[in-house]
Amino acid sequence: MSQEKNWTQLWLKYEPKKEQGNASFFTGLVWKGFDHENAIIKNAQKELINGIQGMLGIALACKEEDKATLIIEKSEDAQIKEDGYLLKEVDGTLTLSARDEKGALYGVFHILRVVAMEKSLKGMDALVNPDNPLRMYNHWDNMDGSIERGYSGNSFFFVNNEVVVDERTVDYARFVASIGINGVVINNVNVKNCATWLITDRYFEKVAQMAEIFAGYGIKFFLSLNYAATIELGGLDSADPLDEGVIAWWKEKMAEVFAKIPNLGGFLVKADSEGRPGPFTYGRTQADGANMLADIVKPYGGIIIWRCFVYNCTQDWRDYKTDRARAGYDSFIQMDGDYHENVILQIKNGPMDFQIREPISPLLGGLKKTNQMLEVQLAQEYTGHQIDVCYLIPMFKEVLDFHTYCKKGADTVADVISGRTLGNKNAGIAAVINTGNDANWTGNDLAAANFYGFGRLGFTTSLSAEEILEEWIRLSISTDENVIDTIKGIMLPSRATYEKYTSPLGIGWMVTPNIHYGCSVDGYEYSCWGTYHRADHLGIGVDRTDKGTGYAQQYYEPNASMYNNMETCPEELLLFFHHVPYTYVLKTGKTLIQHIYDTHFEGVEEVEQMIAAWDSLEGKISADTFNLVKVRFGRQLYNAKEWRDQVNSYFFRKSGIADEKGRAIY
Amino acid sequence: MSQEKNWTQLWLKYEPKKEQGNASFFTGLVWKGFDHENAIIKNAQKELINGIQGMLGIALACKEEDKATLIIEKSEDAQIKEDGYLLKEVDGTLTLSARDEKGALYGVFHILRVVAMEKSLKGMDALVNPDNPLRMYNHWDNMDGSIERGYSGNSFFFVNNEVVVDERTVDYARFVASIGINGVVINNVNVKNCATWLITDRYFEKVAQMAEIFAGYGIKFFLSLNYAATIELGGLDSADPLDEGVIAWWKEKMAEVFAKIPNLGGFLVKADSEGRPGPFTYGRTQADGANMLADIVKPYGGIIIWRCFVYNCTQDWRDYKTDRARAGYDSFIQMDGDYHENVILQIKNGPMDFQIREPISPLLGGLKKTNQMLEVQLAQEYTGHQIDVCYLIPMFKEVLDFHTYCKKGADTVADVISGRTLGNKNAGIAAVINTGNDANWTGNDLAAANFYGFGRLGFTTSLSAEEILEEWIRLSISTDENVIDTIKGIMLPSRATYEKYTSPLGIGWMVTPNIHYGCSVDGYEYSCWGTYHRADHLGIGVDRTDKGTGYAQQYYEPNASMYNNMETCPEELLLFFHHVPYTYVLKTGKTLIQHIYDTHFEGVEEVEQMIAAWDSLEGKISADTFNLVKVRFGRQLYNAKEWRDQVNSYFFRKSGIADEKGRAIY
Repeated sequence: MSQEKNWTQLWLKYEPKKEQGNASFFTGLVWKGFDHENAIIKNAQKELINGIQGMLGIALACKEEDKATLIIEKSEDAQIKEDGYLLKEVDGTLTLSARDEKGALYGVFHILRVVAMEKSLKGMDALVNPDNPLRMYNHWDNMDGSIERGYSGNSFFFVNNEVVVDERTVDYARFVASIGINGVVINNVNVKNCATWLITDRYFEKVAQMAEIFAGYGIKFFLSLNYAATIELGGLDSADPLDEGVIAWWKEKMAEVFAKIPNLGGFLVKADSEGRPGPFTYGRTQADGANMLADIVKPYGGIIIWRCFVYNCTQDWRDYKTDRARAGYDSFIQMDGDYHENVILQIKNGPMDFQIREPISPLLGGLKKTNQMLEVQLAQEYTGHQIDVCYLIPMFKEVLDFHTYCKKGADTVADVISGRTLGNKNAGIAAVINTGNDANWTGNDLAAANFYGFGRLGFTTSLSAEEILEEWIRLSISTDENVIDTIKGIMLPSRATYEKYTSPLGIGWMVTPNIHYGCSVDGYEYSCWGTYHRADHLGIGVDRTDKGTGYAQQYYEPNASMYNNMETCPEELLLFFHHVPYTYVLKTGKTLIQHIYDTHFEGVEEVEQMIAAWDSLEGKISADTFNLVKVRFGRQLYNAKEWRDQVNSYFFRKSGIADEKGRAIY
Repeated sequence: MSQEKNWTQLWLKYEPKKEQGNASFFTGLVWKGFDHENAIIKNAQKELINGIQGMLGIALACKEEDKATLIIEKSEDAQIKEDGYLLKEVDGTLTLSARDEKGALYGVFHILRVVAMEKSLKGMDALVNPDNPLRMYNHWDNMDGSIERGYSGNSFFFVNNEVVVDERTVDYARFVASIGINGVVINNVNVKNCATWLITDRYFEKVAQMAEIFAGYGIKFFLSLNYAATIELGGLDSADPLDEGVIAWWKEKMAEVFAKIPNLGGFLVKADSEGRPGPFTYGRTQADGANMLADIVKPYGGIIIWRCFVYNCTQDWRDYKTDRARAGYDSFIQMDGDYHENVILQIKNGPMDFQIREPISPLLGGLKKTNQMLEVQLAQEYTGHQIDVCYLIPMFKEVLDFHTYCKKGADTVADVISGRTLGNKNAGIAAVINTGNDANWTGNDLAAANFYGFGRLGFTTSLSAEEILEEWIRLSISTDENVIDTIKGIMLPSRATYEKYTSPLGIGWMVTPNIHYGCSVDGYEYSCWGTYHRADHLGIGVDRTDKGTGYAQQYYEPNASMYNNMETCPEELLLFFHHVPYTYVLKTGKTLIQHIYDTHFEGVEEVEQMIAAWDSLEGKISADTFNLVKVRFGRQLYNAKEWRDQVNSYFFRKSGIADEKGRAIY
């Protein structure tokens, strides 16, 4: 690592290892069948040499075949799929077989991971094919350097409306490739100001440089597109997808863009949402808009990823019938089957917006003839701003494991987005990333577990949240078993803890408007955003049953009936689906109001326990990490207490029902 | 008026008048005793000539004394005080007698006002001495051109961190002089960034130019001072008012500043408030801080105006004992008598912060040995952002007429700030102004009535709100009696209407945090700002009696007892002083909750009536004014409905008590 770098190496530290049992595999390296001039192979080679040198102090060199202890070979073995690899140790020789260069690169990172974790390569026999064809990070970076919902400093892609390509770009590519990411969108889906010009001469040179770096790590380069570019760039007076002039402009533009950026994978589009332009403006459908662009980029192998985050953001809070939760499904289900083959609909995990608890979007699996991609959010917009610790992989596991009942035997969200349900290849998983130019990349050192974990989970969906967490701790913090156990004890339940001290039982929101950090129970209650808890002096919750907004009916059976019935509705989602009296008795035997009080007191107690656990790590982990995280824990505790006291006081004042345990409520 | 001006002339339009009965007074003008080279006299002469030319088409010229129809003379008549004048018509000759040049200027504007209003100068016999020694406008303009709490565009004093002196500066000075203002603070009390440098070479040249223009209109020039300038400019490590180094730095600085800006009147200081530095930082008193500066500026005739807006802005909402309303009094009463003669304490009209209804600050008159100045706010921070119409002079009249019981026979706020109570001359009235670089100066054309009215009221406290309003309408909009009546019908009750549809019975706040426009009942309820309504399912209001925070005891008797007792407390302040059950019966026979519902429905109805009245003016007034105000009325109606429905729904949901009339509540 050069001295100039003022950023950390995260899980690719390559520091010397105590465990040297793996050293014997690195006496002789042999490559077979791969082109050594291929950029990905060159990077894999470099990574392997640097990693082994750093961790084991061995200068790995290519040897004659009979002295090989590590063989990396191109293979036609049918069980190895695109991007996949087979890693097998036999009699002291480790063989990495891959179908393609990316598979070789991923396999190399696998080897380095085992060494770094101080696990043994002996007996290795792992066939690893990626579960999802597309595994993407979406950056919400603006060209002025700010990041929408960024909590880790500013952008490292953009500064002062210029594209930045430097050593950090390379490290970023290494990090995301090492966890299996194969596509990155570098700019905010809200494409404004200079970002509209990313597809012009003003930026092509730098953009192409960055795309080329990405290509060397098997990462397709994507841009968010301004749907109104025909107007803003083209000088046309329309962005109507059926207008001949509009189509002609895009054809010419796309020919230019794909010529200038050879590694371009396509575009992400947010249209007709939160003030963004789109086909609805011209009386056209979302399919009209997406297909028009898709047809034009198809000759270049491009795809169009079209976001389904479409809803009425100027709703009247007085209106109890309109339901934002319904909007995604209602906007997209009717055109199911009308989207062309190289369009993918990107669907947020829940029907609202990345709350700490939401039901799964009924569009996932609801669409039966349309390519789908799941969108989750690592940026902790509503989950603690990377001040509060919130390990999100357990939430994503719940989403992936959810049975949609769309197709017998292949009905989980994981099935849908992997392509198993529909037999499609334009499918996958995307996350709004939580990075920025902070030295530690993610603001809170512990938030890097989400950055790491999403990639690992996207590649291998069957990994458990705990397995992923343990990998990340071993690679990033320490291989000491006590440290590992302590950090697991802090992080594994952290999402549940965050949920306890914030909004109860799936109702969501209750956050400070705009900022989305900190409690404001009524902050979104009388707003235009479709985000209501409907609390009165008797009860709380939104009736989304067949007697209410009917949202529950958007699911297949038996989910629809399960959610529709207050007795069978999973209690963690009770207030999302039902308006419930404070005196309603939950399965625990507690009333709803007492549950609210109890969980909020518990949440704060759990944060206090986390902090005590963290304090026990002093001297056992890097002082930088210890101190930085400790400061944030102080802020988390303050935040948790504010939530506890505001939520409890709000509902006590409203209901007039006292806490059974007589604790302080204001 | 030159073509380049893109701003209006407000109440100095000087357009041709139908009423020509006053023409005979302008055939011959004679000046006696004044120096014609004096800048104020030259400006008075110019104003008179331009005004009479514009309104009556007469080229007013100086004639021999025996042909005089208008005499302007310097007079030693004892009944004419500083800045005052006597205007008397005898046998067709009008004589304006003044003790000093400013009196002559004010008298000239009086004459022009009568002509412009199409009233008669015949029989004129008016002795006009200003009621308040200091009559000031405070601008909260920042040097980047923004205006804190500005709703009329950007600053016309500052652009891009430069001081701007141009024709608009002159017009501004004319406007404020025409209504009797004799002091202006040009920069925000929150002195940050470049504004700290206003007292350095970087800005002296332009600042002195502006101050000289002001001098020509009898306006003393003031700056807001950064209390920490010794650190930020001086490079010292302290701003301790008792530190010899600090004192020495200020002595040298003030010698320089007063030499460079001859018309400098002194400084306004916000210290130890909302994050601003101050003497508390060094364990010193507010008096220590103010006196140190005052002693240093005294040789130059300077004064220090020290704001009393000191409170704990990081309060814990859980704490029911600490009361922000108490803070001003508690911070300043103990040092009463310790402030030097050229210090004035500037006290906001209420103990909180410019709400639509507050009690009068108990510091006013509470201080018995200290110079006091009243601060009110024309900028409609909490009163509608110059979108909603809110004629504020009726509120200011209530403040001025309030009996503090500090001294028998001279106990009103008007007495205190005029100097009548204490026999002091460093006293007066200041307003945070509502201007900006919008063409019409005040965003909403109708908000100019506050700009105009404050000056007139400050000069002549006995004027009624209706008299002032009628003057302003005649000068600015129309002399048509129907138009006058219609606009009076809209504006006179507009403050009462705004109060009805916003927060009830003096409780205040309930506004969108930070912005302060739009309803958010709980917006400041769980915050650090000391701004709580304490509503629960049984009642609402803050107990500030002797059983609560004790704030009511800060008043003299009988006010203290009156406020302390729920039955004698003026009902418009009921919730400010008491926590009151929703079922409490008001003197109207209505319950509190029904009063809340009724006033909120009425408030919206009154806005609808205002709009209907305004619509009747189409074609009868300037189309620009008609259309601009009409658009804002549309926004006001939206705002009023949001307030109505949010407040009613909030309290219905919380109390469970239905509206007796069964109207829509959500």
